[in-house]
Amino acid sequence: MINPTDELRPPTRLMLTPGPSCVSPRVYRALASPIVGHVDPWFTEFMGGVQVLMRRVFQTQNHITFPISASGTAGIETAVVNVLEPGDEAIVCVNGTFSSRMADIAERTGAKIHRVTAPFGRQVDPQDVRAAGQGRKIKFVGLAHGETSTGVLSKLEGFRQVADELGALLIVDSVATLAGVPLDVDRQRIDICFSGSQKAISAPPGMAPITVNTRIEDLLRNRKTKVQSWYFDLTTVMNYWGKERTYHHTPPVSLIYALHEAMRIVLEEGLEASWERHRQNQAALIAGLEAMGIELFVRNPADRLPTVTSVVIPAGIDGAKARARMLNEFNIEIAGGLGDFKTTMWRIGLMGYSSQRANVLLFLDVLERVMLDQGMKLPVGAGIAAAAESYAHAEPVPVGHGD
Amino acid sequence: MINPTDELRPPTRLMLTPGPSCVSPRVYRALASPIVGHVDPWFTEFMGGVQVLMRRVFQTQNHITFPISASGTAGIETAVVNVLEPGDEAIVCVNGTFSSRMADIAERTGAKIHRVTAPFGRQVDPQDVRAAGQGRKIKFVGLAHGETSTGVLSKLEGFRQVADELGALLIVDSVATLAGVPLDVDRQRIDICFSGSQKAISAPPGMAPITVNTRIEDLLRNRKTKVQSWYFDLTTVMNYWGKERTYHHTPPVSLIYALHEAMRIVLEEGLEASWERHRQNQAALIAGLEAMGIELFVRNPADRLPTVTSVVIPAGIDGAKARARMLNEFNIEIAGGLGDFKTTMWRIGLMGYSSQRANVLLFLDVLERVMLDQGMKLPVGAGIAAAAESYAHAEPVPVGHGD
Repeated sequence: MINPTDELRPPTRLMLTPGPSCVSPRVYRALASPIVGHVDPWFTEFMGGVQVLMRRVFQTQNHITFPISASGTAGIETAVVNVLEPGDEAIVCVNGTFSSRMADIAERTGAKIHRVTAPFGRQVDPQDVRAAGQGRKIKFVGLAHGETSTGVLSKLEGFRQVADELGALLIVDSVATLAGVPLDVDRQRIDICFSGSQKAISAPPGMAPITVNTRIEDLLRNRKTKVQSWYFDLTTVMNYWGKERTYHHTPPVSLIYALHEAMRIVLEEGLEASWERHRQNQAALIAGLEAMGIELFVRNPADRLPTVTSVVIPAGIDGAKARARMLNEFNIEIAGGLGDFKTTMWRIGLMGYSSQRANVLLFLDVLERVMLDQGMKLPVGAGIAAAAESYAHAEPVPVGHGD
Repeated sequence: MINPTDELRPPTRLMLTPGPSCVSPRVYRALASPIVGHVDPWFTEFMGGVQVLMRRVFQTQNHITFPISASGTAGIETAVVNVLEPGDEAIVCVNGTFSSRMADIAERTGAKIHRVTAPFGRQVDPQDVRAAGQGRKIKFVGLAHGETSTGVLSKLEGFRQVADELGALLIVDSVATLAGVPLDVDRQRIDICFSGSQKAISAPPGMAPITVNTRIEDLLRNRKTKVQSWYFDLTTVMNYWGKERTYHHTPPVSLIYALHEAMRIVLEEGLEASWERHRQNQAALIAGLEAMGIELFVRNPADRLPTVTSVVIPAGIDGAKARARMLNEFNIEIAGGLGDFKTTMWRIGLMGYSSQRANVLLFLDVLERVMLDQGMKLPVGAGIAAAAESYAHAEPVPVGHGD
């Protein structure tokens, strides 16, 4: 029992969840640096550096690129409320909780939202989007590049093509993918792309990087109605993050420091190296899980999101009890499923600073122990051996993120 | 020129602005503590402690009391978008930039907003609110307890009485007052009260403490339409900050740690002692400024906000140049005016950890130097002597916040 007035003494967890990921000591040091005022000339210059790094991470030249002063869900809200006006129609590809959330948020603008669905665990078919948009004036096609709730990665090219055919914008939620999975905003012609600070970038939670292109700038200039949210209104926030640096609201200065340091680390490693590290660590994790007889929720390997691995909890295992034991005895957090999958799915995140060889090996070892103790029959050591074998066949990548 | 990839090296500023205020080393230490997951059982228990402390700071028993995952302006947005539905009417008392912002935000809901104004530098007259509400169905009366843009404190009692007569709710922006100025949410019967983390509480910016009473809970339950913002929707956010701790969005864990520590410090000092410290330090500041012949913007002493002192820049002084010199040579930041007062007003904040005797004395000394160097005729040493005289007549209070 924590007494409310006691000194803060959090446990030191290894977060192998779909966010937040663990944070590098370098990022904690930046986080605790002395704050300055939000219109201090030093800070307004520093903001420019944050934007330069963020453009590199998103791979874009977009002028309007900055961190929203709120968490990843605010990225969804900012994207859709700035684009939509009453009477508009849009398509959202729904294959999990977070893409469904995009549709829910968009509906609150009064626009008509067409949900094009796929069974959870699979990508939406761009052909279904084409059919849904036929003969309609569709403002945007929105989707989650990585669906955190199920561990599905969607290929963007087909959606871009259909959006072009429909004369629609493309909005991409890259919360679970940015810096962990190949993504190139300009080359892939994404009109709005947003992410979260606490995933593969491994800054603390509380900011949502966003980038919007000149098509969106034009659209914002030509809106007939005011954006319904004042706080998330890009037309005015951009006076602060734009050349003028005009006060709009007080941003979370400390989180911006931390995000800057986290992006420095990502760029020192290099995006390609980071993607490869995420790929290799997930490959080893999957090899280990499969050797232990655990079934992957996403059946088609090509649909698997490298940062989040979803598995079916084996029959006979109490998933919540297993998670509690990992947390309480080993300080390791993994996530359960969301919604319908609450009791049948585990989600294992290997993102950013958490995506390290040591963590994969430790997790497989601990998972084996927990499952053995719940009476499951397992070939002892098979999981960790399969992971080691997987690493043995890969080109070595640096141990971690920021090391 | 900062190179974007350079290590973060912020200057160490003394922030005597209307926020952010300086942050105690204890709070920085909490800020940099290891993060945990947002549904980690340790964290969901810790959240309860944060809420206990926040209720003490607001002086309320309200169940729905928590920090919004965004900055102070989001407090305004959360308050008004949760209460208003299309077709509603409300009154906002406008006597500065931030109360005007409340009206702007409220208008984006489609509700009809009546602005009852006072000249900047004065309180709105509750009698004018009564007149504006006569014969109308007014959902709420909203006002800024402390108007940060002008340094005006409004007495709440008259507004509560008029709101009662009109059958309206009372929404109070306490961004510039909470923990620095007497405020008692339950005794003063405020229906929604919100603040910012970075003012007299002296946590880093990025969170907005809010508390709402059971009248608002009932109203939320009986809404006919969905709240237009998903991110700020109290009906669902409260499933996370309520007993269930059901995931809504990922909150800024690090900022919550820091806010907890900052509130501990406030409560260790005691609210009454903190109010008295703010009062005494402003009294000394004002004594010093007046001895230097500087005119206060708020003419009526009873209207002055203890946390923010607004002054008329003396004729012959280049205000922006003076501020730049204080910043560049002495690392002291004060603020200019907003809007029409951009070039004619300085705003000096003495809030939270920044409200210390040493800072008042240093500021008066530096201000004198800067004004002398701009050719102003001043009785040398008069400002600092008057401040010392003011302190000599006061009951000693502890030196600072967290010491």
